[in-house]
Amino acid sequence: MSGMEKRSAAPIGVFDSGLGGLTVVRAIAEALPGEELVYLGDTARVPYGTRSAHTVIRYARGCGTLLAKHGIKMLVVACNTVSAVALDHLRVELDMPVLGVIEPGARAAVRASKSGRIGVIATAGTVGSGAYPRAVASFETRAEVKQLPAPLLVPLAEEGWLDGEVPTLVVRRYLEDLMRGDLQIDALVLGCTHYPLLSGVIREEAARVAGREIAVVDSGVAAAGELDETLRARGLLREGASGGLKLMVTDRPGRFAEVAARFLGRDLDGLEVEQVDL
Amino acid sequence: MSGMEKRSAAPIGVFDSGLGGLTVVRAIAEALPGEELVYLGDTARVPYGTRSAHTVIRYARGCGTLLAKHGIKMLVVACNTVSAVALDHLRVELDMPVLGVIEPGARAAVRASKSGRIGVIATAGTVGSGAYPRAVASFETRAEVKQLPAPLLVPLAEEGWLDGEVPTLVVRRYLEDLMRGDLQIDALVLGCTHYPLLSGVIREEAARVAGREIAVVDSGVAAAGELDETLRARGLLREGASGGLKLMVTDRPGRFAEVAARFLGRDLDGLEVEQVDL
Repeated sequence: MSGMEKRSAAPIGVFDSGLGGLTVVRAIAEALPGEELVYLGDTARVPYGTRSAHTVIRYARGCGTLLAKHGIKMLVVACNTVSAVALDHLRVELDMPVLGVIEPGARAAVRASKSGRIGVIATAGTVGSGAYPRAVASFETRAEVKQLPAPLLVPLAEEGWLDGEVPTLVVRRYLEDLMRGDLQIDALVLGCTHYPLLSGVIREEAARVAGREIAVVDSGVAAAGELDETLRARGLLREGASGGLKLMVTDRPGRFAEVAARFLGRDLDGLEVEQVDL
Repeated sequence: MSGMEKRSAAPIGVFDSGLGGLTVVRAIAEALPGEELVYLGDTARVPYGTRSAHTVIRYARGCGTLLAKHGIKMLVVACNTVSAVALDHLRVELDMPVLGVIEPGARAAVRASKSGRIGVIATAGTVGSGAYPRAVASFETRAEVKQLPAPLLVPLAEEGWLDGEVPTLVVRRYLEDLMRGDLQIDALVLGCTHYPLLSGVIREEAARVAGREIAVVDSGVAAAGELDETLRARGLLREGASGGLKLMVTDRPGRFAEVAARFLGRDLDGLEVEQVDL
């Protein structure tokens, strides 16, 4: 086996501050079913959104280094907070391709929007960082971004309240706020990895509030698409094999296992969640 | 002025990991309008609920020591997480009376309940710690406690969605879960300092789900009552003066000021929020 073949057989590392990154794992597994994935959720230190950039970079280095020890060929940062501040640090430290979720999400939104008016819903931390407007502007200077923090969507996703009256009313209220005075938005970015669990309700309510279809962009799906392109371009795609998944967390593996299936979109089927120290 | 008079004139320190403790400040200001209060919200490190006990104790020591430098006569820990693990450490470290919110809340619930069946809603961290069931058992061994994490109530309070359809449906769903198979509960403890903002809806829905009145116990109000008793017993009550409030946070004072009025139940009236380092 040549060095390149060995390298393509290596796993892909994915990390997030907690659970949410599993929606990115799900998107990658659907796009690239032959890849081995190693996931790390830093559940002992979640959420990262309230920490200083200095601390987030330190945490991200710890997560990246641990995954590098599993011989990964590439790293996907499934955390919006880390994607906003630490990608370059990780690239230098790990000397491998590192992909975040913000640039792919912003790029997909620019492609999907005809009006050039893009809405973003995310956590307060991601909205405050301005990372999505900056990324959108770097692809299309004439695009305009309207952002809104939608903090109730995280506990809705974690509680598994994904359809029915409560999520519908909550999502409607946020989208009415977002679109107030700006009904030209025609693409909406889900800027938090928890939100794809509510994408059905979000898509319906976005169309209802706007009075027409709105393109709903899942940053995790966009990142999976760019991962596919990067692996192909570098000859690193793992083909002709069935993929796998390893799950690690830094705290409370039992609680993680309970909720993980909902985020992954499939049963864990006896897959164990390993606790690791950072 | 005697030493005791000087001591009674000193302020009371209150701290929490973030904003929520302001509902305890509100309860204290209503019960003891002549007291000077100094509040510290550790907004840089919120939430504490996901940290290890070791880390929570370290953070609590930092907060307590900073407040002690303001010459406080007594410390109120308005944080359920800290109240569960760090009170004794703080008493030793600071050498002054230290009051938490869990024991007063548990004691008030035992007094309010005739059936001896007590419900507690709180964050997942507080529920998992078992602090309320332990405290209730220490006052009344025959009482039984049924707990439920109610994570959506924190962002509802922070967003200011305090009445109307969304909070009503969310609260109803939690209380239906809590009382399922146990309709004998006749006292309900609000075991998170954010929840009193929703006490109107909680009271209504508790009565609706149970089919009769339920005593709703606000741990902050209970703590304010015990603070009053402690100060009186020690001759430390500040009387014949109008009270005051000083607000400090460890991060984002602007954001804190925006939301603080809702938690305090009154306008800040030009009161500045000072940023401090720990």
